[in-house]
Amino acid sequence: MDEFNLIQKYFTWNKTPRDVVTAVGDDAAVIEIPPNKQLVTSIDTLVSGVHFPENTPPDAIGHKALAVNLSDLAAMGASPRWFTLALTLPEIDETWLEGFSAGLKELAQQHDCFLIGGDTTRGPLSISIQVMGVVDTGKALLRSDARVGDKIYVTGTLGDAAAGLQSIFSKDNSSNKNNNKKSVLEKEADKVCQKHLNMPTPRIVESNIIKHFASTCIDVSDGLLQDLTHILEASGVAAELDSTQLPLSSALMTLVTDNTEATQLALTGGDDYELLFTIPESREANFVGIVKGKAKVTCIGVITDITENQNTITDENGNILTNIDKYKGYNHFHV
Amino acid sequence: MDEFNLIQKYFTWNKTPRDVVTAVGDDAAVIEIPPNKQLVTSIDTLVSGVHFPENTPPDAIGHKALAVNLSDLAAMGASPRWFTLALTLPEIDETWLEGFSAGLKELAQQHDCFLIGGDTTRGPLSISIQVMGVVDTGKALLRSDARVGDKIYVTGTLGDAAAGLQSIFSKDNSSNKNNNKKSVLEKEADKVCQKHLNMPTPRIVESNIIKHFASTCIDVSDGLLQDLTHILEASGVAAELDSTQLPLSSALMTLVTDNTEATQLALTGGDDYELLFTIPESREANFVGIVKGKAKVTCIGVITDITENQNTITDENGNILTNIDKYKGYNHFHV
Repeated sequence: MDEFNLIQKYFTWNKTPRDVVTAVGDDAAVIEIPPNKQLVTSIDTLVSGVHFPENTPPDAIGHKALAVNLSDLAAMGASPRWFTLALTLPEIDETWLEGFSAGLKELAQQHDCFLIGGDTTRGPLSISIQVMGVVDTGKALLRSDARVGDKIYVTGTLGDAAAGLQSIFSKDNSSNKNNNKKSVLEKEADKVCQKHLNMPTPRIVESNIIKHFASTCIDVSDGLLQDLTHILEASGVAAELDSTQLPLSSALMTLVTDNTEATQLALTGGDDYELLFTIPESREANFVGIVKGKAKVTCIGVITDITENQNTITDENGNILTNIDKYKGYNHFHV
Repeated sequence: MDEFNLIQKYFTWNKTPRDVVTAVGDDAAVIEIPPNKQLVTSIDTLVSGVHFPENTPPDAIGHKALAVNLSDLAAMGASPRWFTLALTLPEIDETWLEGFSAGLKELAQQHDCFLIGGDTTRGPLSISIQVMGVVDTGKALLRSDARVGDKIYVTGTLGDAAAGLQSIFSKDNSSNKNNNKKSVLEKEADKVCQKHLNMPTPRIVESNIIKHFASTCIDVSDGLLQDLTHILEASGVAAELDSTQLPLSSALMTLVTDNTEATQLALTGGDDYELLFTIPESREANFVGIVKGKAKVTCIGVITDITENQNTITDENGNILTNIDKYKGYNHFHV
């Protein structure tokens, strides 16, 4: 199988959307940006053994490579439109390619995101996807617009992906619990958490509601606290989080030994790809009314004044659990 | 050095252009496409040991990673505007990063192409760049519009990069020639050809003239004949090339043993990144008048009817040297 056949077989979409003038088959792709829209774009690389365990199923890799990029668009309030794929493969393995392309295609079609080109090269397994989307001019959700009094919200549940990674690396997941019934529950919880890790759901649907109300938004890829500090630093504000309000799944609760471990995973575990956003108080009632029944969102805290030095997380007794400041300074070179 | 400092130190540009609303520092970049323009975009990956020898100087790698992408834009008649960088590094090597960033930055600034984001990851050395540019709506130079009678032109000289690669891999470049004077000439020629290989010049300046006259255009990355077949197949035409008209540099002629080897390198050697394009006869006189003194271009053949079965290359006696058809079918998965 040569490269041409490989593309034909695994990377050809059914129908080219009207805004794609030229896709695969010329020196570059040509696309039409609708009037009054800005282009929003992000690139992320997944390297085997670094961003996913080497035995990850290929459909999960295909899904995740696009999902982490779609998540960046969701965090900007942008609608996905197109993407390119730079795929580096050690060899042409048709079984692998079939799985990879199926996982990639399913998610892409679900969000109307069209593959407009790419590059396949030989080398150690690595996938770079650059996603492109559009947003109404001037309406992108940035990190810098959080104001004192804004409520801090998060979509979905937190810590599941980190628990999933723990369970993959743990040789005996049921060492602390020793009856059969618990073990079955644990196995089910393992599956749920590993699915969060391997097949994250980019919060595009949620973003479509959130973008009309939020002052800032970011996706939780490095852990809630680290990602929150990006908003706090960019906006010049502090925050007060209530650790008892963190949304925790029953799967997570099944896998952890106690509440402290669950809180720890929810606050610092990476790879959740939930949206963390702030809602000005004046719009909160309206937001809560509209989002109800359409998306799971939870209020976990409030934006405070930086001079009050209240960058804190409180526990169930209102005592300070930890300080958010110590998670500052971590930064990826990514947009 | 953490990722944040790495970006600050090596990948920060002096001033953000007005069409970049948000660059590095948010979940995604936001850019403004001017009215009546289409977005043209291409991604290419360079893998160490595959696309460049492992001992290639870092500034050459930085230069080349962007140059091959700019070359794709030139082939579309597009003006470069922005790019993203996905950089996978085995370790943070500051000397390497300094060289890489210097080579990248110099070429980017020369063409007003602004880094709007990226992703650094740990892994085997590999660089993916996605370049974005703009073209007047409907004016992109495609491969499919060559017509019978169009003249076939190429910029610059051909075969130099292939000769440069040969000289890098040859243990004794002067084995066939044995006096000192020739050896000095050869060393100089080696340098020239290796520079073509490592630091190719994307033909942006030439493209700015060519785009007003050409019916098709492609960049010569896989070798003249292979790239020509892409135009022929897409346009449904054949070609007649005159091998005596191929533009050969004096450096190339110094390094080869005879004319046959030079012709072979010019016809099939990759990595030249010259533009191969077709000019309708009606515009040729005008084109030649305007391009003169501004860019080196050479007419090397003519587009013929596919039914005449004249997909040929003739030698100095007018005899058929080879048939272009045998180079068909090779195709990268890239746009």
